[in-house]
Amino acid sequence: MIMTDPIADMLTRIRNALQQKHASVSMPASNEKKAIAQILKNEGFIVDFNVEGDVKKTLNIELKYGPNNEKVISGLRRISKPGLRVYAKVENLPSVLNGLGIAIISTSNGMMTDKEARKNHLGGEVIAYVW
Amino acid sequence: MIMTDPIADMLTRIRNALQQKHASVSMPASNEKKAIAQILKNEGFIVDFNVEGDVKKTLNIELKYGPNNEKVISGLRRISKPGLRVYAKVENLPSVLNGLGIAIISTSNGMMTDKEARKNHLGGEVIAYVW
Repeated sequence: MIMTDPIADMLTRIRNALQQKHASVSMPASNEKKAIAQILKNEGFIVDFNVEGDVKKTLNIELKYGPNNEKVISGLRRISKPGLRVYAKVENLPSVLNGLGIAIISTSNGMMTDKEARKNHLGGEVIAYVW
Repeated sequence: MIMTDPIADMLTRIRNALQQKHASVSMPASNEKKAIAQILKNEGFIVDFNVEGDVKKTLNIELKYGPNNEKVISGLRRISKPGLRVYAKVENLPSVLNGLGIAIISTSNGMMTDKEARKNHLGGEVIAYVW
């Protein structure tokens, strides 16, 4: 059975683009991916993003590098997967490298970081880690 | 008050030596540091280590790089610190990046990885994360 995982694809595209030191990376847009991009922007992991196109929408992400051109994102990891969904209750929300990174949680109030989910007393699906 | 933290110093020396692509790194030896080096070796994060000298012992660590000279260790993070000790019960042992990395735990049976501590049903002091 072929399983597609658009979020894994998004993380892979970002990972590869960073490796190649590209200034930006594009992919088919979705509301889920936009929400993830918004979190990455809020948390300072990317410069900005936008969505263009009418029917076939494209999500463009402007990548971020440090003063010596070093990556600001050192790693991205898909946690919950279509074949094995991972959920966490609020009391079991993961911490990524003891707060050095973030977990992206899909909650009943939308996508948010583990920190925001804890503040809002919400558990949810553990989408990915970014550090 | 000056606090010395020989383990933080060890992690910093390794981090800096990897950054400089050095083949090896040396530091004052201690039993704790030897135990950490042994774990790093067992887990494939370093090539090898040895201790030399009689009174003032030195710990030498041979660093490891991948086929394209990339670092095998992407990060080291001190968790428990002299000023703020961090302990975990066996049921709360941390996972590092969902198993991509290791937590080094100081247990009543010695230093071991989070995985070994779980297998041995032991909690302990959360010394560091390596990933």
